[in-house]
Amino acid sequence: MTTAGTAFDVITMGRIGVDIYPLQTGVPLARVDSFGKFLGGSPTNVAVAAARLGRAAAVISRTGRDPFGDYCHQALREFGVDDRWVTAVSEYPTPVTFCEIFPPDDFPLYFYRLPKAPDLVIHADELDLAAVRAARIFWMSGTGLCEEPSRGATLAALAARAEDRGDQVATVFDLDWRPMFWTEGSSAARGLYREALSHATVAVGNLDECEVATGVRQPRACAEALLAAGVELAIVKQGPAGVLAVHRDGRETQAPPHPVEVVNGLGAGDAFGGALCHGLLAGWAPDRLTRFANAAGALVAGRLACSSAMPYAHEVEELLAGVTGRGVDPSTVRQP
Amino acid sequence: MTTAGTAFDVITMGRIGVDIYPLQTGVPLARVDSFGKFLGGSPTNVAVAAARLGRAAAVISRTGRDPFGDYCHQALREFGVDDRWVTAVSEYPTPVTFCEIFPPDDFPLYFYRLPKAPDLVIHADELDLAAVRAARIFWMSGTGLCEEPSRGATLAALAARAEDRGDQVATVFDLDWRPMFWTEGSSAARGLYREALSHATVAVGNLDECEVATGVRQPRACAEALLAAGVELAIVKQGPAGVLAVHRDGRETQAPPHPVEVVNGLGAGDAFGGALCHGLLAGWAPDRLTRFANAAGALVAGRLACSSAMPYAHEVEELLAGVTGRGVDPSTVRQP
Repeated sequence: MTTAGTAFDVITMGRIGVDIYPLQTGVPLARVDSFGKFLGGSPTNVAVAAARLGRAAAVISRTGRDPFGDYCHQALREFGVDDRWVTAVSEYPTPVTFCEIFPPDDFPLYFYRLPKAPDLVIHADELDLAAVRAARIFWMSGTGLCEEPSRGATLAALAARAEDRGDQVATVFDLDWRPMFWTEGSSAARGLYREALSHATVAVGNLDECEVATGVRQPRACAEALLAAGVELAIVKQGPAGVLAVHRDGRETQAPPHPVEVVNGLGAGDAFGGALCHGLLAGWAPDRLTRFANAAGALVAGRLACSSAMPYAHEVEELLAGVTGRGVDPSTVRQP
Repeated sequence: MTTAGTAFDVITMGRIGVDIYPLQTGVPLARVDSFGKFLGGSPTNVAVAAARLGRAAAVISRTGRDPFGDYCHQALREFGVDDRWVTAVSEYPTPVTFCEIFPPDDFPLYFYRLPKAPDLVIHADELDLAAVRAARIFWMSGTGLCEEPSRGATLAALAARAEDRGDQVATVFDLDWRPMFWTEGSSAARGLYREALSHATVAVGNLDECEVATGVRQPRACAEALLAAGVELAIVKQGPAGVLAVHRDGRETQAPPHPVEVVNGLGAGDAFGGALCHGLLAGWAPDRLTRFANAAGALVAGRLACSSAMPYAHEVEELLAGVTGRGVDPSTVRQP
């Protein structure tokens, strides 16, 4: 697309891998009989979610040089996500991730990303910065900052975006705090999160993630701290309490979670992210943006799979219109 | 068992982990839809195979402190294998292994054992050397020598066995050469293999493995070199050409492979190993020993699973008696 002079709607950068998820829910791994295989990695899922919503999406990442790496390419193509910037490294295998599924709110993850995941071997000098700059939305995640060379590459991409905003719609920082990936701890992360925030225009995270980024934990204080750190739109996910979105221009909204009978909460945050990109590209106000994204997240939370479960726009609209809404016990409601 | 003053029939030492194997065969990982979960790790499978044949077996190994570690214990107990010497380490996850299944003879493995597998963190000073010494058969594998502290622990166990043979039946060195686990390369392995052979009484390996251990590759020369290095019985697996077993006392046999329609060749070598232990404990001559072990391997090669596919004695006897034998196209015959 960039070769034809047309910018991507969405480029995401960061984790890719294979999710090996139980086909039985409510049981520990020891009692799981069989597993399915799904494309995974949060920024990858966000690109898939955006593609499902009709957006031209691409991923910047790296896999191992192995059959699971081949699968990542095959799956991206099947989902209509451009894979030209997904390259292979020889040193490390494609990461796999297992989970346990205990609805409604316990979904422990077991990562096999040691000693180093290929997606942390993204080098700044290999980035197509013209394409990164031209993308209408660029999406990166906090995990991309956890280790070099990915750290420098992610910051270089953000800096390139900030140099010349052109026709850009948003530069999104998914605060995505995964302490197990940070050998240096959260204090090292704080400074890097600050630097990334100074180049981003949208920040999105839950309360734990906002606290790492800002040092505060009260939702409104988090939003204000994120705005003060440089973004135009701060989106604070508070679980059952819903989503707070505050724009620098004064608009704000508090969107309640969309009720859902949770099957697997994993992937719901990425569905939210892809829908967020979709709404930002459409120029929606914070209110419509967060309601749509909440509904997209709820749809994926109600499904076993993650990447392959990302909703189409009509499904989200139908859910919002109540066509497919289901009344559920509020105690089972969980918001990504 | 040792607490009651009774020695184990078989103690194996080395790898343990979870095999995540395709439930579809003949397709690359990218096209596998679903996976099953099986206890894995060669010495672990040998213990399971021995237990299936009615022997009191135990494993010395380590897992991660995680749900897959819990599963290893649960599976060992279900198979009737004593797990008292399988302990957890906090630093590393329980290894997982994927494979591709291309019958009759291509079964690539994809190990997730980096940066270090828990089963390589076995310390010599934590071994129950009295139990190791008392076991009628002790079985270790070449992979246990690839890294410290497992290397020192494995050699310490072998040395303890050699100190006082008592009622021992055999100390088996499974040459098990996995170059990907050896950062130092095969030249480092040679010396360690020599040292282990000097304490072992039985050596078993295929031609590649025998070459690493002895420097020669011709089957008869391999057997002679292994005997010269210290063992009493050398077993050289030559694939379709069968198994050569040569005893120091002059008895020898060349057992043809047992014909089988191969479903998944993985695990067949471990079935051979468990059956070998069974036959050694029974005091069988090399001829009966290798025919029985070949048939046990053939049964597992004809099944999709590994550990859970280990045969019962009556199944092996029936196969040898021709009760369940099947005529197959010789071109599909593969011997573990």
